[in-house]
Amino acid sequence: MSPNTPAHTAPYTALLEALRATVGASNVLTEGDLSAWEQDWRKRERGRALAVVRPASTLEVAAVVKACAAANVSIVPQGGNTGMVVGSTPDASGTQIVLSLQRMNAVRNVDAANLTVTVEAGCVLQALQQVCEQSGLLFPLSMASEGSCTIGGNLGTNAGGTQVLRYGNTRELCLGLEVVTPQGEVWDGLSGLRKDNTGYDLRHLMIGSEGTLGVITAATLKLYPLPVAQLTAFAAVSSLDAAVALLGLAHQHLSAGLTGFEVMGQFALDLVRKHFPAMQVPFAGTMAAAAPGHPKQGTAPSGGATYCVVLEASDHESDSHARAQLERLLEVAMEQGCVSDAVVAESIAQAHALWHIRESIPLAQAQEGLNIKHDISIAVSKIPGFVRRTDALLAQQFPGIRLVNYGHLGDGNLHYNVQAPDGADAEVFLKTQEHAVNTVVYDMVDQFRGSISAEHGIGSLKREKLLQHKSPVALNMMRAIKQALDPQGLMNPGRVLLIK
Amino acid sequence: MSPNTPAHTAPYTALLEALRATVGASNVLTEGDLSAWEQDWRKRERGRALAVVRPASTLEVAAVVKACAAANVSIVPQGGNTGMVVGSTPDASGTQIVLSLQRMNAVRNVDAANLTVTVEAGCVLQALQQVCEQSGLLFPLSMASEGSCTIGGNLGTNAGGTQVLRYGNTRELCLGLEVVTPQGEVWDGLSGLRKDNTGYDLRHLMIGSEGTLGVITAATLKLYPLPVAQLTAFAAVSSLDAAVALLGLAHQHLSAGLTGFEVMGQFALDLVRKHFPAMQVPFAGTMAAAAPGHPKQGTAPSGGATYCVVLEASDHESDSHARAQLERLLEVAMEQGCVSDAVVAESIAQAHALWHIRESIPLAQAQEGLNIKHDISIAVSKIPGFVRRTDALLAQQFPGIRLVNYGHLGDGNLHYNVQAPDGADAEVFLKTQEHAVNTVVYDMVDQFRGSISAEHGIGSLKREKLLQHKSPVALNMMRAIKQALDPQGLMNPGRVLLIK
Repeated sequence: MSPNTPAHTAPYTALLEALRATVGASNVLTEGDLSAWEQDWRKRERGRALAVVRPASTLEVAAVVKACAAANVSIVPQGGNTGMVVGSTPDASGTQIVLSLQRMNAVRNVDAANLTVTVEAGCVLQALQQVCEQSGLLFPLSMASEGSCTIGGNLGTNAGGTQVLRYGNTRELCLGLEVVTPQGEVWDGLSGLRKDNTGYDLRHLMIGSEGTLGVITAATLKLYPLPVAQLTAFAAVSSLDAAVALLGLAHQHLSAGLTGFEVMGQFALDLVRKHFPAMQVPFAGTMAAAAPGHPKQGTAPSGGATYCVVLEASDHESDSHARAQLERLLEVAMEQGCVSDAVVAESIAQAHALWHIRESIPLAQAQEGLNIKHDISIAVSKIPGFVRRTDALLAQQFPGIRLVNYGHLGDGNLHYNVQAPDGADAEVFLKTQEHAVNTVVYDMVDQFRGSISAEHGIGSLKREKLLQHKSPVALNMMRAIKQALDPQGLMNPGRVLLIK
Repeated sequence: MSPNTPAHTAPYTALLEALRATVGASNVLTEGDLSAWEQDWRKRERGRALAVVRPASTLEVAAVVKACAAANVSIVPQGGNTGMVVGSTPDASGTQIVLSLQRMNAVRNVDAANLTVTVEAGCVLQALQQVCEQSGLLFPLSMASEGSCTIGGNLGTNAGGTQVLRYGNTRELCLGLEVVTPQGEVWDGLSGLRKDNTGYDLRHLMIGSEGTLGVITAATLKLYPLPVAQLTAFAAVSSLDAAVALLGLAHQHLSAGLTGFEVMGQFALDLVRKHFPAMQVPFAGTMAAAAPGHPKQGTAPSGGATYCVVLEASDHESDSHARAQLERLLEVAMEQGCVSDAVVAESIAQAHALWHIRESIPLAQAQEGLNIKHDISIAVSKIPGFVRRTDALLAQQFPGIRLVNYGHLGDGNLHYNVQAPDGADAEVFLKTQEHAVNTVVYDMVDQFRGSISAEHGIGSLKREKLLQHKSPVALNMMRAIKQALDPQGLMNPGRVLLIK
């Protein structure tokens, strides 16, 4: 043992030596600032790793897992560490290995005729998008963190994003996986097949299991032809019911050409106006009046727009065809009274500016102060009723509370967030009220048969909540599977499932 | 025990009484002609059931499963009994319960705004299609057996069919399940959510598990707006390479409007001409010459078409828009030399007639005599190479063998079937050569990283093959899962997985 080795690593000298022999000493990090791997993205928890291990190949991953299994040391797989639920950072014990996949970032193969790409887990999403685009193909997964998040993390958490409406979650984009099992064996399930009915679907079991059943090292993913044109519209609607009606019309008029449908509540937009005054948010006038410093909340006066929608249409024919389709849709929607005003971006720059409004909501919220986030989903048809009832219940139980409601309406996925009352100490509000607010929201989600985690996963942040809101029969099946595949319980323990 | 009770049921008197008490005596069938439940669809095997039990509700299914578990009696779930791999009929022991879901056939709910339908397992596929169509919505799953097969069977086997290219397999159409576990508990996983990341995906584990992990009793499925127009084209191509090139062009030109892409080899079409002479198969003249009585096989003379393609385009705008798109595609394909001739159906009747040619191939094959069927998939890009090499190897090892090659090229799924040499005794040929032919085909499938069962599943017909062609790591995970969820081994034992 070198005199510099931190004390907590002492019992693990043999393991660390074995890991160094496997991946090279420079890829077994035990000293210095490891916060990039130990601190979760939302800064909710800071852990301490026994070591951060950075293998460069599937065989190295397998050797690392085997060594850890032999030493009975648990493993926390990590990609870009951009997760939202504290799922990929070590606990505070200093006894867990962070297995970083970032060095495994090769795009192994683009098969244009098969419309597939095979890529390693550590590849950054944006890098993959770019490689595919260079081949004239679209990898449609897209989300705010795409410059940092990795494919392995996307798969491990079944990430969603803004194109799910048309192309599905990460799960729906994956045809095959390469996985290192908790025993350190390599399952080569890479496959570019659209149809394969040879036994249980292990791929879908691994996807979304958040590293608790094995380590995803590579995947074969679906590609699509690049659209010829993409148009963005921004529409004011008088209610969520109107937004749902617009969505129905958009499905009918655009069919698979409808690739994005985001909704934003008035207060969410007012926060953007307040904190980013240079940003041009359409329909400020037609929205329910709200002074810039004091965003108005709740329902708008009769006739005012309470929500706006960002709608994206993709087209494989031409820009003019896309525009005719989209304008016809908006015309019909206005005739039917579900849209009160709308603009269609005239240029790519304008389209980006409209999307930028949507993407700025989380930042504006952060500027406004600490808040309580919910990533929920409800059947689209039930969303207006859910929001009406939950808004009312929260307003009653937490006077002055401010609701920041926005999200992927096309997927039934709301980021139904709660900001402390104006002027209140947000930190105190969170400390004293977060649990009670969560209880109101999640109980209502149960009543509407929704999900308490639509696209972010469970991690350690929601594992207690999962016990309360998931069917006991399902939890028992999950536990049986975890026990069967990882009997030592070494893969990302304590995440998703509380076993003991 | 009544004097009429067959001898083999004697040790099970108490169980049968309990089952009668649960579902009614008239729904526990032990006598008379039970061949509808005991004989598999392809008439490969005839089993003998202890009883056929027909519950009418999820709670009845749960009670039946509990009673069987207590008596240690195994259960074979069955829907329409149209499976292709002997997966839903009892073995010959007379000790298994056939659990028929046919009485559970209600469409529980159509949610148009959410684009979902919740339906019980015993609902016949075609009945579901019709209910959805009456609501102006499309349930896109479609296959030859749709008049008899049930949703539960479709889910249990992850059925494919002719619309997978656009809408996916049954798996991709399912959002949630209701399942009775091997312990007789009800897992209510019905859900109309597009996004739900709350733990392991038990839904996808159940789908395609062929009744070995539980009994699917209901499901929530995705719907789509009905297309406004559908057009069918029939095109002659000079090679499989040309067919793959045409598929690529069709993806580019039609994008999601491409809803069907079937390929048919010349010999398959010649069999249709021979056995259904009244059917108008286009391009007889341009195909390589073949006397009606003696279909020609193998490659065509230079310039002749060796394959034909049925291509379906769906459109949400208008018939004229669809036609313009499709004609433009065929123009480009002819300019580029990948299509030598093409017709577009002028009416729905013509479209049906063209599809009918494709659908008549299995019947024509049956008329021609017994044959060896393969339901394989290969990456689309590799299909031409696979067929070239396998055709050559089979021709060399089995002189005079006749290859009936057709299938869902858009999904990489071929029904690569083998007919005995002309004039040979087909029964003798099958008896003596089937194993050797399978070995050649499946070994080549392995070399091309394909699947030995693309859409039909494993059942008991391919369970030995699965052991040879599936990764041992995957098989071990599958066994661990089966053991974890069904430790008594009572759910459809011996199907998919050979445990002992």
